[in-house]
Amino acid sequence: MAITTFRSNVKVQDGFTLKCDNNNGNHVIFDEPEAMGGKDLGMNPCEGLLSSLGACQTMAGKAFAKARGINLNDIWVEVEGDIDLSGFMGAEGVKVGFQEIRSTIHISADNTEEEIQDFVRFIERTCPVGDTINNPAKIVAIPNVIK
Amino acid sequence: MAITTFRSNVKVQDGFTLKCDNNNGNHVIFDEPEAMGGKDLGMNPCEGLLSSLGACQTMAGKAFAKARGINLNDIWVEVEGDIDLSGFMGAEGVKVGFQEIRSTIHISADNTEEEIQDFVRFIERTCPVGDTINNPAKIVAIPNVIK
Repeated sequence: MAITTFRSNVKVQDGFTLKCDNNNGNHVIFDEPEAMGGKDLGMNPCEGLLSSLGACQTMAGKAFAKARGINLNDIWVEVEGDIDLSGFMGAEGVKVGFQEIRSTIHISADNTEEEIQDFVRFIERTCPVGDTINNPAKIVAIPNVIK
Repeated sequence: MAITTFRSNVKVQDGFTLKCDNNNGNHVIFDEPEAMGGKDLGMNPCEGLLSSLGACQTMAGKAFAKARGINLNDIWVEVEGDIDLSGFMGAEGVKVGFQEIRSTIHISADNTEEEIQDFVRFIERTCPVGDTINNPAKIVAIPNVIK
């Protein structure tokens, strides 16, 4: 299978209110709470990262349950992650991003507990977003100075 | 500064259509294109990850421009990333997640090119989502078997 390239084009709407387009008809709005200077018209990007992880795990679970012999009744995922925001504010020696991310994968299925535990491990290793966070992609930042 | 914990609660609405709530009044919808079995009611989680990265870089740029001596007129970010989906489909030895992520940070500012290039490097290292992808968080997956 060839490489698939995914895209997002992020533009400022107003203040911290941002519109992210996938160039394919869909978008998300990210913002900051009023206490952080935003208008609270969307979740913030850190919550966006957690959402994409939980959604990717949920989709992997839905996509592969049947093939893995799981009679899935329901799946939902609660994700939480810890950041020391003093790193963002410039404190030396403090990790800027998430220090720990906890993903609770709730599964209701007509299977044994062991089969479900195995399936959760399968979801973990099969989720592209999770893999990207666990096994860093090469990230290239390209400045484009507008004159 | 204390640790801040961010959250997202991901539930299936229908098929691959997922609603992700930050438990604070905001949500995003993720879905898959019809060709992937979805209803195309939202971007997919991989595009969500790229969006959260681009949005986080944009916000870091907006938040710190003045303090860094940048007279910012505009900033927008185009993010793209490559995945070989055969990894997701189970091919051995293929990275499941993004192999490379390219983020083009467009900046219009009344500054020299060198000052703007420096500012882009500042944005790169100050963006919590980018740091999370570059310097992996500890990710813990907790199965919860519903009986």
